[in-house]
Amino acid sequence: MALIESEAGLIARLRDLFHTSFQTQVQVGIGDDAAVIKSSNNKLVATVDMAVEDIHFNKKWSTPFQIGAKLTTANLADIFAMGAIPKYLLVAAGISELNNSETVTELAKGIRSVADKFEVTVIGGDLSKSEKMTLSITALGELSAQPILRSGARVGDLIYLSSLTGLSAAGLAILNRELDRPRYVVEAHLNPKLVAPDKLIKVATSMCDVSDGLATDAAHLSYASNVNFNLSKDLISQAADFKDLAELAKELNEDVFDWILTGGEDHFFLATVGKENESNELGIQIGSVGKGEGKLLLDGVEIKKTGYQHF
Amino acid sequence: MALIESEAGLIARLRDLFHTSFQTQVQVGIGDDAAVIKSSNNKLVATVDMAVEDIHFNKKWSTPFQIGAKLTTANLADIFAMGAIPKYLLVAAGISELNNSETVTELAKGIRSVADKFEVTVIGGDLSKSEKMTLSITALGELSAQPILRSGARVGDLIYLSSLTGLSAAGLAILNRELDRPRYVVEAHLNPKLVAPDKLIKVATSMCDVSDGLATDAAHLSYASNVNFNLSKDLISQAADFKDLAELAKELNEDVFDWILTGGEDHFFLATVGKENESNELGIQIGSVGKGEGKLLLDGVEIKKTGYQHF
Repeated sequence: MALIESEAGLIARLRDLFHTSFQTQVQVGIGDDAAVIKSSNNKLVATVDMAVEDIHFNKKWSTPFQIGAKLTTANLADIFAMGAIPKYLLVAAGISELNNSETVTELAKGIRSVADKFEVTVIGGDLSKSEKMTLSITALGELSAQPILRSGARVGDLIYLSSLTGLSAAGLAILNRELDRPRYVVEAHLNPKLVAPDKLIKVATSMCDVSDGLATDAAHLSYASNVNFNLSKDLISQAADFKDLAELAKELNEDVFDWILTGGEDHFFLATVGKENESNELGIQIGSVGKGEGKLLLDGVEIKKTGYQHF
Repeated sequence: MALIESEAGLIARLRDLFHTSFQTQVQVGIGDDAAVIKSSNNKLVATVDMAVEDIHFNKKWSTPFQIGAKLTTANLADIFAMGAIPKYLLVAAGISELNNSETVTELAKGIRSVADKFEVTVIGGDLSKSEKMTLSITALGELSAQPILRSGARVGDLIYLSSLTGLSAAGLAILNRELDRPRYVVEAHLNPKLVAPDKLIKVATSMCDVSDGLATDAAHLSYASNVNFNLSKDLISQAADFKDLAELAKELNEDVFDWILTGGEDHFFLATVGKENESNELGIQIGSVGKGEGKLLLDGVEIKKTGYQHF
């Protein structure tokens, strides 16, 4: 009861924070029991991601703006990975300073910084008190064609990565040493940039976003497709950004392939493509699909669940 | 990397736990980057709710099964409150014992205990480590008619409550005294039962679920509709369950109207209905809608934001 007016005030503020000027199919947005979207001829695509303080992010390094932006990035990437167009978000946030309007505002602004870029609208949410900041975002998207599944890779396909992975891990390695430069590397960890994989969507036989690390996600695809993924260090080394990343790894006494293969949190896309669609415009070609029972190999050596082996 | 197989195992287990035998429009369920639902001619209705340990529930009193069931209940109630039919759930869970398969299984079973009843399918989720258990559920529903909004109450309408509120608050009062009887009262708090408001949906001019307490939710409707809600203690006292609740309140030295008006967490429905649709089958008639600027009155006395006044 004591909250009626402040609650109404909060809802009004959230409505303002999430008000967009682009056209949407939203009939009822924030403020009723649930949101209502007009009917559509498209398939509905839906995914949820959760991020927890001290597990997925550290408030020492990340602002509420960055935390909101980063989870939104991960979330929209999952929609793109199905070949779909993200449209709507529902945001549940648990924060310790529920009465600190600055935190709520900054979280909302961070979410919008990514959502606006793709004309995605926040249609609902829930706010709760929580000792550790916890954010859970559901993304809804639309799909007019068939979804691009993890299970669609075919023997003979080429394996593409939309951008070279590892920079986010490099940024984390720098932050872990209590350093904050080179800035563009730290930024890659704190503010990963999402680029819609428009060209890959048109031709991919299988696809996923690279959030858990290239090796893990490649293993997901090869396992789901029941084929072997043959990655090549030589091909990976030919990526334009490889040289800078390798130098940075050397400086920090880390293994550059460890970053590239197991780093995670880059939010790029991994896809397989028929040979007839080979093109530099798709990203970095890092290997090819061979016959097999779902194994992941690097230069012919299997990468097992024990992880990428240093050597 | 180290998690590939156990992750695949976990996903397989969650797929099993959430596998249903009833017919759905799910094209891609748990296990890819996102779920895909076939296109539908209906409007899409969406809502999210979050529950945090020690804020919304206490693990001393509630099992993971009960926690999952209760949040699902709250979540589906929001979909019904729009006049829609719940169809799908996405579940994000943060738990401290991520490797404790028992907790995950029990949470899932609790969610299903409610979801199955309404033929609702879990299509996706995310699991994270979290010191305090945190659960966030997104419900998606379908709506073929126009939504029932909070803003639709008209002067002259009758106000109905689908069941008498207050029993959940009574249960909490008992638990707070470290007692556990009468059991049906404690159960009302730990295991609230959701009944779809089928009859109200057909005739309601405005509706919401009563999760924040009757007074708060009635104020939401009167405020959104810009009319006055005139509630009557006399009418409320005529509810079949009132006598038992009043006796229990007396025993515990509490105010029965405090429980009824501000208790919360009952997950019943509050709606307004045109006089021509008056019927005992709609629930308990607790008042009527009058001209005004969005006030909530009990026996002619305004209930202000300072809360229901004891007297």
